[in-house]
Amino acid sequence: MKLLRVGTAGSERPALLDAEGTLRDLSGLVDDIDGALLADPAALDRVRAAAAAGGLPVLAAAGAEVSATDAAGLRVGPPLARIGKIVCIGLNYHDHARETGAEPPAEPVIFFKAPDTVVGPYDTVLVPRGSTKTDWEVELAVVIGRTARYLGSAREALGHVAGYTVAHDVSEREFQIERGGTWDKGKNCETFNPLGPWLVTADEVPDPQALPLRLWVNGELKQDGNTAEQIFPVGEVVRYVSQFMTLYPGDVINTGTPAGVAMGHPEPKPYLRAGDVVELEIEGLGRQRQLLKDA
Amino acid sequence: MKLLRVGTAGSERPALLDAEGTLRDLSGLVDDIDGALLADPAALDRVRAAAAAGGLPVLAAAGAEVSATDAAGLRVGPPLARIGKIVCIGLNYHDHARETGAEPPAEPVIFFKAPDTVVGPYDTVLVPRGSTKTDWEVELAVVIGRTARYLGSAREALGHVAGYTVAHDVSEREFQIERGGTWDKGKNCETFNPLGPWLVTADEVPDPQALPLRLWVNGELKQDGNTAEQIFPVGEVVRYVSQFMTLYPGDVINTGTPAGVAMGHPEPKPYLRAGDVVELEIEGLGRQRQLLKDA
Repeated sequence: MKLLRVGTAGSERPALLDAEGTLRDLSGLVDDIDGALLADPAALDRVRAAAAAGGLPVLAAAGAEVSATDAAGLRVGPPLARIGKIVCIGLNYHDHARETGAEPPAEPVIFFKAPDTVVGPYDTVLVPRGSTKTDWEVELAVVIGRTARYLGSAREALGHVAGYTVAHDVSEREFQIERGGTWDKGKNCETFNPLGPWLVTADEVPDPQALPLRLWVNGELKQDGNTAEQIFPVGEVVRYVSQFMTLYPGDVINTGTPAGVAMGHPEPKPYLRAGDVVELEIEGLGRQRQLLKDA
Repeated sequence: MKLLRVGTAGSERPALLDAEGTLRDLSGLVDDIDGALLADPAALDRVRAAAAAGGLPVLAAAGAEVSATDAAGLRVGPPLARIGKIVCIGLNYHDHARETGAEPPAEPVIFFKAPDTVVGPYDTVLVPRGSTKTDWEVELAVVIGRTARYLGSAREALGHVAGYTVAHDVSEREFQIERGGTWDKGKNCETFNPLGPWLVTADEVPDPQALPLRLWVNGELKQDGNTAEQIFPVGEVVRYVSQFMTLYPGDVINTGTPAGVAMGHPEPKPYLRAGDVVELEIEGLGRQRQLLKDA
């Protein structure tokens, strides 16, 4: 299933994009798309059955532009409410580690984004005040569906994944690297984690290590990778993280970005400015588009 | 006011410890102690007026042991519900920076703890599996009461502080320092942020830079500091953090620890093990006590 949330920020309603591309209302069936729903197989089965029966109310017909604010006024919000934490994996693609001048890590690098950085996939992204090095990163985001604590294997870990979505791990490189302390300082600016458009349930993503990811800035292709190039694949990432912290339903893991970020370019590096437009997509998981503005 | 939350984990009710030391029930007056309450001066005034009028229901009489599970069965939970994020400041005391062998930072070091690491001040703390370097850190925690974004001065920043409480920033030093990546890996293990017992409103803490902090392990004094020794005082910390991320009501900042952590001791360093008991206090903000167990 493709689960999403539509409506004004903070008042989104749960919805489903069905096989025909019709947007259907789930608000009569579930409170919201959140960890509680993802941890409840019976509730998910009810949604699946209702979708198959075809009786869910239509929000927008097939072919309508439901991937942004459209004629029906349906803003797409982040596809997950009440996110507990966002664990991020750094330098998880061979080609991205090379372009940053870093050695491929011996074990996963972990940092955090606060859930309050999350916005919808078509919302504005703010260039922080004083920023000259705002950068892009397309990432596969993993959504946790079962509490994960000291998992024994990558295979077991995949059973704790509820689904996948697209994350834009916006990053300010000066704040991240040149201002002392950990990377978190450049990863948590307001609006720095567009998420969505859809949460695609894990049953519809048979191989999370075969997903092409792409990102464009002002129409120019900048990142063109594939999750096959991840140093630590999804199952191993979830297993590894669960040794250091407990993952709960509704937690998110951003699993790293492939090569092609601004920081990896020769000088002058093409960092983002107000007026730029970033588009990103992962095959099967949908597409995002953000206009940059000054904070 | 001293605000707190009592009851079983996940079902705490809001309460107030009055000037006579009597624990009083706030559940008829407010839903919970959270960011929404702290951002609502009128609601806080109603609580203050009801406390002054003396009519709030008594949960436990003055002198009763309300600081742990007592005869009345009142577990003390963390004094704040629905925490948005926990921003932590590293190496913020001159003496602690010295003992770790680090230079005093030129600007505040930021890392994160996930809100799901928070437990009550008397709850069990778990030594993570595989840990040999679990360490203690007593810290002054700042609770945000007004949205803080690009604040102009430390003085202005203090006006965004709702109150103060005690945080135990439990840390696994191998995970934090020797396993690659950022400090977050050693700061987010389950139960690693005991918080409380009370949220003391800012009006009752006239000078946050004059608070003695102490921590004992198995009755032996290990940390004996004062917030006067902070490199970056509370107002400056809040102002600084607001340049990199937006702080919301109900967010918490752990403002760093003074000297005396296990890592600062000569070999063999006295890291925590199952069976150890840690006690910590900040004058005027109350006292915590945790038994360590294996995860």
